[in-house]
Formats: sequence, structure tokens, C-alpha cells
Amino acid sequence: MPQGVPAVTPEDGLTTRQRRNRPLVVLHTGEMKGKSTAAFGLALRGWNQGWSIGVFQFVKSAKWKVGEEAAFRALGRLHEQTGEGGPVEWHKMGEGWSWSRKAGTAEDHAAAALEGWREIARRIADERHGVYVLDEFTYPLKWGWVDVAEVVDVLRTRPGHQHVVITGRHAPPDLVDAADLVVEMTKVKHPMDAGQKGQKGIEW
Amino acid sequence: MPQGVPAVTPEDGLTTRQRRNRPLVVLHTGEMKGKSTAAFGLALRGWNQGWSIGVFQFVKSAKWKVGEEAAFRALGRLHEQTGEGGPVEWHKMGEGWSWSRKAGTAEDHAAAALEGWREIARRIADERHGVYVLDEFTYPLKWGWVDVAEVVDVLRTRPGHQHVVITGRHAPPDLVDAADLVVEMTKVKHPMDAGQKGQKGIEW
Repeated sequence: MPQGVPAVTPEDGLTTRQRRNRPLVVLHTGEMKGKSTAAFGLALRGWNQGWSIGVFQFVKSAKWKVGEEAAFRALGRLHEQTGEGGPVEWHKMGEGWSWSRKAGTAEDHAAAALEGWREIARRIADERHGVYVLDEFTYPLKWGWVDVAEVVDVLRTRPGHQHVVITGRHAPPDLVDAADLVVEMTKVKHPMDAGQKGQKGIEW
Repeated sequence: MPQGVPAVTPEDGLTTRQRRNRPLVVLHTGEMKGKSTAAFGLALRGWNQGWSIGVFQFVKSAKWKVGEEAAFRALGRLHEQTGEGGPVEWHKMGEGWSWSRKAGTAEDHAAAALEGWREIARRIADERHGVYVLDEFTYPLKWGWVDVAEVVDVLRTRPGHQHVVITGRHAPPDLVDAADLVVEMTKVKHPMDAGQKGQKGIEW
């Protein structure tokens, strides 16, 4: 997207540079494909800035999005070996969070989601990452496993320069209010309408 | 996006496996951010499949999307060194196509766009890549620099297993018809509305 001219200049006491570099809460929602892929594409830009990338996947199955995970883990190793780009951490709820000794079970998804969020909140307080990707985080919010008001408060008061990208359908209205940039991925046409199912390299 | 059940099973003479793995034309359009980032996120999945990735940027300025370019060039070098993932080629119209001896000039954008498309058509005939990203390719189509009917014909008759992802606003209706998967990125909220301009790590 090319640079544009803002519609209004707000009276917020910030300089143009301060306002320009204000860290963002980005929300990718809507029914269609592209929410997660666009989040990971955005994270590539952050990686190239040398920022620490933290990915947290709130998905049940570890089967999905292996392509992005493999590519980002490769970029993380490259950073360790050559210093190029930024460090990468990739955490998945589905197989038990990697920082936790508890294995993920079918019974405690709500507890696992809350544990994941609390760890993210600690990292935000510590200014651990430059970019957080909270993949499919809208679902634990929708299902009441994680309190929306708590999330909004942590996001609104987060210190330093930390971008947070959240993906998933059915984003709660309070999260939409708290986000700086909200994109809705809308369906125009999908191969499943023509009887085609998901395939490797496209869906994962 | 999780696997789903197709709404209809078409009578096209294909087996489920053939239909499932039919290569796609994917179109990311609409007014909002996320079109290119989602295309590059999708290309990460193809890279992880070991497919050859060919990126062709139909943009005037080489300043944009440097983050994705640096990350994909790093992944391409990693493939050369370790065999992990697939090879990556990245070509830009803005500084003159890398296969061409002609330097890009302000006067011949139409000729440069057509030259880029003709090279892509040759590569498609040769089955050179597994994934083609034609970034911002809708603009030369909209401006009449490249013939939409020719593009649709090349896409419809392409041999082998080649996915093509096209991004940009104002996609011509015939291209929408030819695409298998069309996502429209729709604005819900944008920081420019609140007076914020583009920033590194987010826009590039």
C-alpha cells in the first residue's frame, strides 16, 4: 500500500514522527482466507527490521500452517547464525505451550488458552517482542475463555514499541474498538463452491 | 482455514484427488491492506513444499515491500545452501526486470509491464515455477498495458501444476471470472483515519 496523506491531523500532542511510529494493534478478521497469511506476511517485514517475532497459535490442531512455521523457524535459525533479520519464537497451544510442562489435552482448552494469554501479557510487560502474532486468538475470546476487557487493557497500556497482530473470525466489538487497523477478508469466490477441497501449499 | 466439505460435487470427470490438487489462480483485491502480505504468506507455504517461487512486482518504486523481499531472498539462499524449502526468484519492474538489458525509465512503464507479462507467460509455458506471485498486476491490466483476454487465456490453458497469485485493486471482471479463489480485503478501520501515516515494519 503506497504512502498516503492522513485525512485529519489529530490534536494528541504527538509529533508527526511519534505518531507515525506509534505501534499498532492490527486485526485480521472476516470469513475468508488470508487472515493468517497476511499476518505472517506482515511479520516478514518485522523480521527484516531485526525485530523479535513471537508467534502464538491458539489452534487445536498442530497440523495447520506448517508452511509458515517451517519458513519462520528457518528465518530464526538464519538470524542466530548470521545476525540477519530478527529472532523468531513460535509457540502452539495444540501440542501444549512450549514454555509449559503441562501437555495439551482435549479437556482443558479453556485453561490452555488462558495460560497462553497470560504468558503473552507477561511478555508484553517485559517488552519481549517487536511483533506478536496471536493467530486465531479471537476464538478463545469469543468463547469466554479469555476476558476481552483484560486483553484490551493490556493492549492499551502496553509499554514501548510492540506491534500486535490478531487473527480470526467473529472478533469481539471491544477488540475492534481497541485495534488501530482492522481488515475484513471477504469472500468473492472460493474453490469449495466449485467442489474443490483444501490442498497442500495452499491451505497449509 | 480448516478443511471443509465442498457445497457441491461437480461432474467434471476428475477424481477427488485430481480436483483437490488442481492448481489455483488466486486473486487478492479490494481497497485495504493485506493483499500482498497474504500473497507472500501463501508463498511461504509453497516454499515449504519445496516448490519454486517466482515473484514479479509490477510496482513503480523499488522502495516498497523490501521486508518480504529480504526474507524471501534469505529463504532462497537457505535453499541453495541446505536444500530446505524451494528456490526463490524475485523480479521487479521498478528498477528494470533483472532478465532484461533495458533499464526501467519513467517513459516506458507500459512496455516494461508488457515485457514482464510476456516473460511470465514464457515461464508458465515452460512450467518454471510452482507458485507465481504477480504483485500489483491488476494495475497494468486496468490501464490497458497488458491485454486481459491474453492473460486469462494463458492462465486457463497453463500446463502442469502451477499456482498463480495476483494482487491489486480494481481487478478486471474477466480476471475475477478466471480466478478460482478471490478475496476482497475490506477496510473496517485504518490508522490513517486517525492521522497516522505509514511506518517501517508495517507498510514495508
